[in-house]
Amino acid sequence: MSQHKYLLSEDEMPTQWYNIVPDLPEPPPPALHPGTHEPAGPDDFAPLFPMDLILQEVSQDSYVDIPGEVLDIYRIWRPTPLFRARRLEKLLDTPAKIFYKYEGVSPAGSHKPNTSVPQAYYNAKAGVRKLTTETGAGQWGSSLAFACAQFGLECEVWQVAASYKLKPYRKTMMEIWGATVHPSPSEVTDYGRQLLAENPDHTGSLGIAISEAVAEAAPHEDVRYALGSVLNHVLMHQTIIGEEALLQMQMAGETPDVLVGCTGGGSNFGGLSFPFLREKLKGNLDVAIRCVEPAACPSLTQGEYRYDFGDSAGMTPLMKMHTLGHSFVPDPIHAGGLRYHGMSPLVSHIYELGLLEAESIPQVECFTGALQFARTEGIVPAPEPTHAIAAAIREAMKAKESGEETVILTALCGHGHLDLASYEAFLAGSMEDLDLSEDAIAEAMAGVPVLG
Amino acid sequence: MSQHKYLLSEDEMPTQWYNIVPDLPEPPPPALHPGTHEPAGPDDFAPLFPMDLILQEVSQDSYVDIPGEVLDIYRIWRPTPLFRARRLEKLLDTPAKIFYKYEGVSPAGSHKPNTSVPQAYYNAKAGVRKLTTETGAGQWGSSLAFACAQFGLECEVWQVAASYKLKPYRKTMMEIWGATVHPSPSEVTDYGRQLLAENPDHTGSLGIAISEAVAEAAPHEDVRYALGSVLNHVLMHQTIIGEEALLQMQMAGETPDVLVGCTGGGSNFGGLSFPFLREKLKGNLDVAIRCVEPAACPSLTQGEYRYDFGDSAGMTPLMKMHTLGHSFVPDPIHAGGLRYHGMSPLVSHIYELGLLEAESIPQVECFTGALQFARTEGIVPAPEPTHAIAAAIREAMKAKESGEETVILTALCGHGHLDLASYEAFLAGSMEDLDLSEDAIAEAMAGVPVLG
Repeated sequence: MSQHKYLLSEDEMPTQWYNIVPDLPEPPPPALHPGTHEPAGPDDFAPLFPMDLILQEVSQDSYVDIPGEVLDIYRIWRPTPLFRARRLEKLLDTPAKIFYKYEGVSPAGSHKPNTSVPQAYYNAKAGVRKLTTETGAGQWGSSLAFACAQFGLECEVWQVAASYKLKPYRKTMMEIWGATVHPSPSEVTDYGRQLLAENPDHTGSLGIAISEAVAEAAPHEDVRYALGSVLNHVLMHQTIIGEEALLQMQMAGETPDVLVGCTGGGSNFGGLSFPFLREKLKGNLDVAIRCVEPAACPSLTQGEYRYDFGDSAGMTPLMKMHTLGHSFVPDPIHAGGLRYHGMSPLVSHIYELGLLEAESIPQVECFTGALQFARTEGIVPAPEPTHAIAAAIREAMKAKESGEETVILTALCGHGHLDLASYEAFLAGSMEDLDLSEDAIAEAMAGVPVLG
Repeated sequence: MSQHKYLLSEDEMPTQWYNIVPDLPEPPPPALHPGTHEPAGPDDFAPLFPMDLILQEVSQDSYVDIPGEVLDIYRIWRPTPLFRARRLEKLLDTPAKIFYKYEGVSPAGSHKPNTSVPQAYYNAKAGVRKLTTETGAGQWGSSLAFACAQFGLECEVWQVAASYKLKPYRKTMMEIWGATVHPSPSEVTDYGRQLLAENPDHTGSLGIAISEAVAEAAPHEDVRYALGSVLNHVLMHQTIIGEEALLQMQMAGETPDVLVGCTGGGSNFGGLSFPFLREKLKGNLDVAIRCVEPAACPSLTQGEYRYDFGDSAGMTPLMKMHTLGHSFVPDPIHAGGLRYHGMSPLVSHIYELGLLEAESIPQVECFTGALQFARTEGIVPAPEPTHAIAAAIREAMKAKESGEETVILTALCGHGHLDLASYEAFLAGSMEDLDLSEDAIAEAMAGVPVLG
């Protein structure tokens, strides 16, 4: 038989997260206080996060132990499988070998619980009563709702209004796990009310939803905020994906020549790639590592690298990152999880160091690849990882032309069972390639503070 | 750490299906030809199924080798995990130990691909061009669509109209895998047109959809029909669930005192329970084995044991089974996969032999249990296995009263990511307990031929 699936036992599951910061040739620029523009210290983050997470955010340790309580919940779905896409390879008639790490086996159906669980754990440990957050497509909100249920925390979610209306079932899923869900902009916060007064049909954005969730958390002693991507500690929690994948590629007896991962805020990408980048920096691996973003929201490939806010209202610390401007509202593509104006500061910094590549792909090509994938590999991908699949297919077709046995690794970070409306539109031929308007970027960038 | 999950390696995956028939104290009554009422021979099934499956249907071998091509596809998601529901046990404060075998990890999200894959394989091997089938909730239709895509077969599905309207995303999923989907009753068959002429808003039933799928298959040499439950070969394909679970319970060092499984047509139930029943018949296990059915469609607990048709139009062979009458249209409960008028003849026969117990549970209790389950175990169950969960909770609460460490085993045969509308109704408080009307049974039974 030809092997399709590489599985680790529970005993082989990594027990530490990997922090890439100390291994980088230059440290990433610090976050800045939104008011003073001075480097932000742990206290500046304290209204938002518990101290354990703040210390992880600025940690200089290469490895951080995963608490037993977190490992215990990880074991509901971890270790996750690594697959070789033999049937897709056959369809493409390519000499390339395509491997994908599959994170859709988690209860929420995506990689997001890898960080929602430790975030809920550390908050519960710190005596927090309630966590607030934003969600776009709903994957992060449902993952946090699941994690809060595990630790007895309340959970309040602001879901981007467009997605709240288009994907009512994500709301139901959050409610099954006990969360309260608002469309954003909402009537619950000052900022939301202000935006609704200007435009009652406002479709919202991730940046706005973050502002609302932060506004609810910051003033209350027993309420904190949780972010599903972008920050260092979030990416670190996700490195369990890459650590497992390293072991599984060893089982398969292969080393990747190219690693491609979809990037919205950077958590799936960082999670898969950082352990491989560590091995590359050590000289153990010769692998091209590439971010894949939607053509409609290309923060790395078309954004500017400068200080900007993480949210629309300018409440968060300023972070140096590739950004399309914090007031940028991306076109309503189906990959809601990739519709964020900025990129993780850590991914941005590493990209600037020349250690990463980036490309953007339009959504019709992504869904075309997804259909080829579903009909061969069986799994229906979420809209976000269709970008990774399309990039893997591009690589496989290049290998076909050159005749090389390129080894491609990617992550299928979630299944698409809750995104079938997107496929419905695609199958009906009504999906458009939404191109980015340069005017839209210019307008959004005008509002970004000048801090280099 | 306390272990939650028991995993087999791919090498430990069983390579044979188990056929319980030769181990039973009495053979099950034969199927009868719908016209002559004489025992049906292999030729009578030939317009519907390829010979390999017909021979499995009447096989006297205890074990049948699983073809390598089928094992190869099983390995996409098999072996599946067995979990111990430690968090649910804690919530219930019960001394009982609750184990569940989880089949929701398949590409279609349920146990159905265990039989759709071999059915597609044997049909492809026999040179069949297209498979037709019915589907209620959509789980079977999407599983067959997935399997057909793997073997290059066309797939045409009649989906019960009520479900077609209520669950558009299942249709999309089938189309992603390349299937053609009709609401049933449809304009495509004589029978469908006849029913629509009588009632243009007909909501359909599984029995009607079967008639339509059979009507399309039987007259064409290169078209065959596939059934997702009820028949012997279907239940046999599902025994891989129970064979794996036997090995996993050994890993856990426990033997079940009670096994509960939800039963619609019987495939999930037979799949889990038959290998355990074999061990019970051999005297190796002392386990109570119980079918759990919806209060609104209680074929075992309230139906009659007699010959009846598998479909509404009376085209299929007559099978001796517990039936509510082939024209019975169950109330529109959310567990669409359990809304079938009959019960597997094999499960019915074994029940008559006194080797199985049965109980029925109303849907509000089922969804209450499902919410407790989702908030502790993390996985959102499909509406069908909420019946198994509710039964397991009943057992666990009995154990709490008696103080006994009862070991309970059940199967979570699918996740509920495509059934969130049901949870939405439950959370909104608008779900009703639909009780069975005795008049409805009496009316349906009046149409059943008198054959003992």
